[in-house]
Amino acid sequence: MNFVDIILKKKAGLPLTDEEIHLFAEGAATGSVPDYQISALLMAICFQGMDARETTTLTMEMMHSGDEVDLSDIDGVCVDKHSTGGVGDTTTLVLVPLVAACGAHVAKLSGRGLGHTGGTLDKLESIPGCSINISEADFIRQIKTIGCAVIGQTQNLCPADKALYALRDVTGTVGCIPLIASSIVSKKLASGAGAIVLDVKTGSGALMHTLEDSVKLAEAMVAIGQQAGKPIYALVTGMDQPLGTHVGNALEVKEAIDILSGQAKGDLLSVSLELGSRMLVAGGQADSVEEGKEKMLAALESGAGLRKLEEMIAAQGGNPAVCRDTSLLPQAPVLIPVPAPASGYVSGMDTTAIGYCTQHMGAGRALKTDVIDPAVGLVMQVRLGDYVEAGQPLAMLHLRSEQQAKEAISAMQAAVRLSDVKPAPLPLVYAYVSADKTVYADGYGPAK
Amino acid sequence: MNFVDIILKKKAGLPLTDEEIHLFAEGAATGSVPDYQISALLMAICFQGMDARETTTLTMEMMHSGDEVDLSDIDGVCVDKHSTGGVGDTTTLVLVPLVAACGAHVAKLSGRGLGHTGGTLDKLESIPGCSINISEADFIRQIKTIGCAVIGQTQNLCPADKALYALRDVTGTVGCIPLIASSIVSKKLASGAGAIVLDVKTGSGALMHTLEDSVKLAEAMVAIGQQAGKPIYALVTGMDQPLGTHVGNALEVKEAIDILSGQAKGDLLSVSLELGSRMLVAGGQADSVEEGKEKMLAALESGAGLRKLEEMIAAQGGNPAVCRDTSLLPQAPVLIPVPAPASGYVSGMDTTAIGYCTQHMGAGRALKTDVIDPAVGLVMQVRLGDYVEAGQPLAMLHLRSEQQAKEAISAMQAAVRLSDVKPAPLPLVYAYVSADKTVYADGYGPAK
Repeated sequence: MNFVDIILKKKAGLPLTDEEIHLFAEGAATGSVPDYQISALLMAICFQGMDARETTTLTMEMMHSGDEVDLSDIDGVCVDKHSTGGVGDTTTLVLVPLVAACGAHVAKLSGRGLGHTGGTLDKLESIPGCSINISEADFIRQIKTIGCAVIGQTQNLCPADKALYALRDVTGTVGCIPLIASSIVSKKLASGAGAIVLDVKTGSGALMHTLEDSVKLAEAMVAIGQQAGKPIYALVTGMDQPLGTHVGNALEVKEAIDILSGQAKGDLLSVSLELGSRMLVAGGQADSVEEGKEKMLAALESGAGLRKLEEMIAAQGGNPAVCRDTSLLPQAPVLIPVPAPASGYVSGMDTTAIGYCTQHMGAGRALKTDVIDPAVGLVMQVRLGDYVEAGQPLAMLHLRSEQQAKEAISAMQAAVRLSDVKPAPLPLVYAYVSADKTVYADGYGPAK
Repeated sequence: MNFVDIILKKKAGLPLTDEEIHLFAEGAATGSVPDYQISALLMAICFQGMDARETTTLTMEMMHSGDEVDLSDIDGVCVDKHSTGGVGDTTTLVLVPLVAACGAHVAKLSGRGLGHTGGTLDKLESIPGCSINISEADFIRQIKTIGCAVIGQTQNLCPADKALYALRDVTGTVGCIPLIASSIVSKKLASGAGAIVLDVKTGSGALMHTLEDSVKLAEAMVAIGQQAGKPIYALVTGMDQPLGTHVGNALEVKEAIDILSGQAKGDLLSVSLELGSRMLVAGGQADSVEEGKEKMLAALESGAGLRKLEEMIAAQGGNPAVCRDTSLLPQAPVLIPVPAPASGYVSGMDTTAIGYCTQHMGAGRALKTDVIDPAVGLVMQVRLGDYVEAGQPLAMLHLRSEQQAKEAISAMQAAVRLSDVKPAPLPLVYAYVSADKTVYADGYGPAK
């Protein structure tokens, strides 16, 4: 088969056969199809899309292109959770211990920070001694023993996806729902999970800025799960402001510990309960979302969740004492507030800019080779709808040096919009997407 | 500037700046931008198009990317003609001698056969001794002496176009009007012509199958000429059947000589008069198209056109005696007719299939390295609207060997559609496209 004919077919808006998609994925993974043909096809897919069958086939091709984690040795259904990436979004460190404390088995392969968004691996590595490089055998042993493990992906997981992702990144073809959906789900399926709960972010700090696109992405991923015979459930949650108050690696670990020890609440906990309760339903530990939430709250109140985090940190070589004394986490030497430049209601945030602000401070990487500063970041002092007087702090910066302050202060002042009018409150969950239906929060969703 | 941003801009449907188009053309020509980014941008252009300013900028960038022929040493306006490619379409060999005999200066850089279409260079090379490899100095000297020359392109003409064309060919991005228009016009402008008459073919044997697309292409090229300050005029002419009766290299030279010697007439002559008369107007040898046609017919009747072809062949090292005795041209050893499989009116032809039929016989190349057989081809015995009885010849095949006959006969029988109903006659010229207006043949063009 001539690959040009495959490109022309997609360019004309026709669906590709399974065999053609196989050639595409294999060609990308092995280099047997030149990059310039792969990139032309990627761009054609951006314009013409892929239907559910095509997207599922691409997902399965990428999943089978490399190693696949075998979790069959573990009793029951291993559940996994994936977020499309946000700012101050450390639900993993809150919900994994809680659902594991409720009896769920969580086998989680996480990623690093990307662009303006944080990554669970970077956060875990900010805990002294904690390792995310664990052999598959130790990974399975840890899940059997304590119920959960969060590690990095093996080198050879989904090489076709790796090749396609690298090419998408440099050819302007990242923003394409079937390509994003197949990339995410292929890695989750190759990780061996039996059921997956997805957190698709929407808003100013999300990959997808509009609710419409976020729901489309969620529906595309749930559809793949349905076609592939793996239960996938998705929530579309708000990323109109940082989810937690803390942004930065050690700072986010601290916030997770604060929540698990009952010292903090807020949107981060609420979203973690929404996601985790559905993991408990998928794993068979709860019959309903409500029951799942109750069980998680019980684990929170009893301290079982915090103890589970301690166990997990200890099992992965880290110092579990951080769970009792967060001052053992890396601390930034310089704390400087960001004063509100005027009085007014906090009416909007450029959450992506907040993420990039902490990246520039050293909490994230501009280049893959950059070294992260685990201590730096910021703690938001306001949330959407709050009223601030001029000069009151919008956020507290945690800096390596005072020299970083000026740029960070002006970036944060620009990222927080103040207005005379109090904005209407936004929902935490905009939509619930399952195989049979999409339910929107009141007042959202397509006009009827 | 990051090239990904240029790709994303075009993907979003925004026009590129001149600087961005410069980076694109230069990047393609020098390899400073990787092929996978160029091909992603080419595909985005296929979907989002380019406006007249962008297309002109790309044309000029490609024109200036390599050598440019300097014809300023020649008095008056050098006129050129270009066809988008057809079957049995040897207007160049008919009109160049005629308009040169009328005093025009024709500096023509021609191409080789491509796909199912013939190329003037291959036809000229079928004349014993005739060369198309002439130095620029000799080319200019020949035009000064006898008024015309038809040669091949220099190696370094429009390297950016060469690179883009090679990439388009393997990435499914050939069929895109601004890319086709800039590719054609850049080469014509780099050839140094002061005015250009374009013959955009439409129909079953043309690059563009629909009249709408053919007119769009013609308008795009005329617009480039207007923006670049070079007069470009375009005709959209029919390629619903081979233009002349002869298809094949030496056979088409024979037909041109037959016309110039007054032994043949037909559509090939009519279209040559339409094109050539406009070249005379552009070159200043005629005040009107009508006067141009009259002058060309006078040159035909007086034999001045045939003598000009003799001079040109002699100047390019060929044997001019072929103009008096076409049996000196290469002759195929085997002549076999294609019998009509049924009785009926000739109601349609798959002209592309007819072109490929002669290519398979050896008249064209499937691969760039294939060697052409100058003698083979076919002579059509019917035109659209003719009535044939079953068994009457549709065409006479000129073959190298009898073994080729079976496949060619069935290909030709499949390519000629017979029906009980006499088809309505088709125009030779569907549209006349100038900078200020497009005039359609009666009954064609968009509904009013």
